[in-house]
Amino acid sequence: MIHQFPVRVYYEDTDMGGIVYHANYLRFIERARSDWVRGIGVDQNAMREAGLIYVVRRIEADYLAPAKFDEELLVTTRMHKVTPARMTLQQEVSRAGQPLFRAEVTIVCMTTTGKPARLPAEIRALM
Amino acid sequence: MIHQFPVRVYYEDTDMGGIVYHANYLRFIERARSDWVRGIGVDQNAMREAGLIYVVRRIEADYLAPAKFDEELLVTTRMHKVTPARMTLQQEVSRAGQPLFRAEVTIVCMTTTGKPARLPAEIRALM
Amino acid sequence: MIHQFPVRVYYEDTDMGGIVYHANYLRFIERARSDWVRGIGVDQNAMREAGLIYVVRRIEADYLAPAKFDEELLVTTRMHKVTPARMTLQQEVSRAGQPLFRAEVTIVCMTTTGKPARLPAEIRALM
Amino acid sequence: MIHQFPVRVYYEDTDMGGIVYHANYLRFIERARSDWVRGIGVDQNAMREAGLIYVVRRIEADYLAPAKFDEELLVTTRMHKVTPARMTLQQEVSRAGQPLFRAEVTIVCMTTTGKPARLPAEIRALM
Repeated sequence: MIHQFPVRVYYEDTDMGGIVYHANYLRFIERARSDWVRGIGVDQNAMREAGLIYVVRRIEADYLAPAKFDEELLVTTRMHKVTPARMTLQQEVSRAGQPLFRAEVTIVCMTTTGKPARLPAEIRALM
Repeated sequence: MIHQFPVRVYYEDTDMGGIVYHANYLRFIERARSDWVRGIGVDQNAMREAGLIYVVRRIEADYLAPAKFDEELLVTTRMHKVTPARMTLQQEVSRAGQPLFRAEVTIVCMTTTGKPARLPAEIRALM
Repeated sequence: MIHQFPVRVYYEDTDMGGIVYHANYLRFIERARSDWVRGIGVDQNAMREAGLIYVVRRIEADYLAPAKFDEELLVTTRMHKVTPARMTLQQEVSRAGQPLFRAEVTIVCMTTTGKPARLPAEIRALM
Repeated sequence: MIHQFPVRVYYEDTDMGGIVYHANYLRFIERARSDWVRGIGVDQNAMREAGLIYVVRRIEADYLAPAKFDEELLVTTRMHKVTPARMTLQQEVSRAGQPLFRAEVTIVCMTTTGKPARLPAEIRALM
């Protein structure tokens, strides 16, 4: 699957270097993941009430070129691998086709009390 | 009571204007409030497990002068008024005695299910 | 003029109370202002290169009801008053018609070196 | 060299999972880097006026255990490698000796107009 998600750069995203603050790319790609799981029918509010949350386990991120205020960016998300215990996604932030940021993100499932959990089978099926 | 709390300005706090992003002053003064209630012996984690959280009800804020990267600021918090239903605090962010930001903040207590609640008497006594 | 701008609530916007962190409403309404000025043809990047930035001078904000993860909110912005020196906007964040947050925001114009400036006449004309 | 920097967890750092939002660890370790370079005598404001900024080029991050509101964390930073073109740092966030987050961060130097630059020799000497 490939999922695409637009992000506009606002004042809050920039820093005094005049570019997007590096940590904010993680916020951009997390919005894309939430949009994607909502789109395939996963209700994260319901999951959480049932005691399960998604947690980022590992991120490898490369910053290729800076983004600036008011630019419209595109987050492209590709499922790389999914097992009962974890999923790995490849995510890229680009502007007009130019890649600015690339990350490989490993997500695991946890109980809200902090214990490791399996990704629910019906959710893995949706993916 | 008067409470003082130092805040250093980091990259994350600035925006492309080269100054502290306006919304971040609310984060600075909230840190000061948390530091203050911890200091007088209120455990917000325990309160929350007991089903109560503090919620901001109203803020009046004046931005007097900008702050910049790496500056050391001071948040001064004064309790203005406390009733069973709410408390009002006056908070100021200054740099070397120059006021940069002033706010009057009204805090109420809520249950974690979203209902209004009284400030616990033992907490009002601490204040 | 009335301007409307949708905002989705993401993980980054919430806090451990399970609701939108109070300072983040200021980010939401700033996005709406940037979207509005872009829409009427003001280029904030060009303004800044010409040495002018918009700065928040005062905010009066009321928090009426909490917003939660994944909800779709609407920011409604009304120009209240504009003079050569400042403009005042009334902004509301609502969910399905229910107001959650209301603010009156006073904006002034400043040079990038920190001096007060007049709102450019062509920009006031656009407004 | 080894640099240590304390971080307190505030409301703003948490998300509705009740734990520190994953992107915020990048803010924590960036504060530690800024504190470290200030401590060895590098003035990032002066560098920037001279047209140079530090930019994150790559991050590999592992999330080992969650942190919660009000906890006091420690960021430990170790210089791993420095060349004229880049430096690599190993950074860890821990709580009472328990590692919660580990990252390897590659930093490069850029001109404020976006071109690659060498790390200034006097700064490399300080490191």
